[in-house]
Amino acid sequence: MDHGMTEQLNVQQMAQRLMTADNILILCHKNPDGDTIGCGSALYCALKALDKNVAVLCSDAIPNRYAFTNAHMFKGEFEPQTVVAVDVASVQLFGENNGMTQFSRHVDLCIDHHAGNSGYADFTLLNGSAAAAAELLYEVINAMGVAITPHIADCLYTGLATDTGCFRFSSTTANTHIVAAKLIEAGCHVEELNTLLFDTKPRERMEAERIARNHLEYYLDGRCALIYLTRDEIEQSGVDPADLEELTSLPVSIEGVKVGLTLRQQPGGSYRISVRTAKGVDACAIARRLGGGGHSRAAGCELLGNLENAKNAILAEVEAELDAPQEEA
Amino acid sequence: MDHGMTEQLNVQQMAQRLMTADNILILCHKNPDGDTIGCGSALYCALKALDKNVAVLCSDAIPNRYAFTNAHMFKGEFEPQTVVAVDVASVQLFGENNGMTQFSRHVDLCIDHHAGNSGYADFTLLNGSAAAAAELLYEVINAMGVAITPHIADCLYTGLATDTGCFRFSSTTANTHIVAAKLIEAGCHVEELNTLLFDTKPRERMEAERIARNHLEYYLDGRCALIYLTRDEIEQSGVDPADLEELTSLPVSIEGVKVGLTLRQQPGGSYRISVRTAKGVDACAIARRLGGGGHSRAAGCELLGNLENAKNAILAEVEAELDAPQEEA
Repeated sequence: MDHGMTEQLNVQQMAQRLMTADNILILCHKNPDGDTIGCGSALYCALKALDKNVAVLCSDAIPNRYAFTNAHMFKGEFEPQTVVAVDVASVQLFGENNGMTQFSRHVDLCIDHHAGNSGYADFTLLNGSAAAAAELLYEVINAMGVAITPHIADCLYTGLATDTGCFRFSSTTANTHIVAAKLIEAGCHVEELNTLLFDTKPRERMEAERIARNHLEYYLDGRCALIYLTRDEIEQSGVDPADLEELTSLPVSIEGVKVGLTLRQQPGGSYRISVRTAKGVDACAIARRLGGGGHSRAAGCELLGNLENAKNAILAEVEAELDAPQEEA
Repeated sequence: MDHGMTEQLNVQQMAQRLMTADNILILCHKNPDGDTIGCGSALYCALKALDKNVAVLCSDAIPNRYAFTNAHMFKGEFEPQTVVAVDVASVQLFGENNGMTQFSRHVDLCIDHHAGNSGYADFTLLNGSAAAAAELLYEVINAMGVAITPHIADCLYTGLATDTGCFRFSSTTANTHIVAAKLIEAGCHVEELNTLLFDTKPRERMEAERIARNHLEYYLDGRCALIYLTRDEIEQSGVDPADLEELTSLPVSIEGVKVGLTLRQQPGGSYRISVRTAKGVDACAIARRLGGGGHSRAAGCELLGNLENAKNAILAEVEAELDAPQEEA
């Protein structure tokens, strides 16, 4: 993996650099999730505890469910001298709103857990086996000698829990659980957070899921399951399209299904196709044949044309992959 | 809490009693779940490692998803001298099939995490703050000096993860995560287990959920959400009624909903009503007024009569509880 021109730091070195810095701007990635926001807010609190000027910047609005993290958002009140990115794998992911481009051009420090981090920062703390950037940041804050307050623990737990699907995803390691234990011991509000993060869905999201489930179809002797939502259905349900992401794990969770497909029509009319696969089936190989890409178990592509065309095109590639010689049917 | 005539043991004492015993029969509770089966199988393996005669007995069949735990089920091949129950809160929960009653009448040892354990065994290791019996059994097996093999770790992880909804429920503590970390370090197959336990649903279960979601109704200004399944719908979907348990958490997971109701018609025609509440609303108080009972956030009752009557009766009690003076609307 090429990590650009960046210099790799360990936890102690990153903590040292943060402790000697001031007027610090923390950058989150666009379409912010619990890990980038949780890390941004936790690091904000830790640096505040050291009496530094610090603020957080994100190209997009912070979703309501993360409002409790309550970091101070940058409004130009100081001249940033050190820019630090949390959970951002590449420059493209910073986005371009809220004056982001002014600061994302030169990033001093980066704390990340994406193995493919492009190395855009001068100095990077990277651990690709951490399940969340929050798992790393926990060590950094400890190394800075800052106490993990209950609020910092809430922010870090949010990162840890959301990036692992509440300790369900394969990225979850023994260390993930150890950090979770430490955060609970530090007073994080685990019951309230789990309810907020995993058991609170908007009505509109429920309505969209209802429609999608009514569209469930099986193909290839039950080895492939497909759901879809048209542009009109998405609009009529009133769902925030960002809330539909989680639906993509639904078809592959059905017994016997090797490839789960979720087709969502975009505002322009094209179909965005999410491919999720059982262990041993290469989602990326399927998506790549249609101009897309991704990871081995989660990939995607986008197809022009109507629903039937999109279905036929992706099903042909699913069949080809499932029946490829390397696959045991 | 009255714990009967039992003598309470600590972990060391329980380990001692198991180590000096032989011809051991392990009893699980009826309608077996991941915790009782995981514990039964883990303890079976641990005692086998000490060269003892041991087998497991359960009044009901072991569900397929737990078949991998692979404990030896008792078929009368030895004369049990020590009977030990795992994750069984009271004698009623043993059930009456498979010759259970012959052994459940006199239980020597009990390892349990239900605060309300009735104290039916001669000696009990009870910790009501453990999230699963598996969390306790992990300590017992360690105290016995038996190595936690990957298979024992798989069995214990199954108990821990299923009883906590994969570390989501409020019973999850720092120690729960610490034990999870130890089990992963011991080689448990956490990725495969999470897929098996949480991301594999039968087609029939999907179909029943589809129907139930089409029946979603809101009441009391959106403070109450209700789903239902008639007897015919359950039959036509082909779902195993045991697989519907999880559905009961659906209505209360909707934003703004304080009381979630799930009505399932029973083979006899009556409606079984599951009441789930947000923090601060007493589910048990609602169910109790209709002759049911349960816990503060999860309770239930059963009503004769048709669907409309059942809905009206439960909704009246939900409204009464929500508008009770102690409640802030």
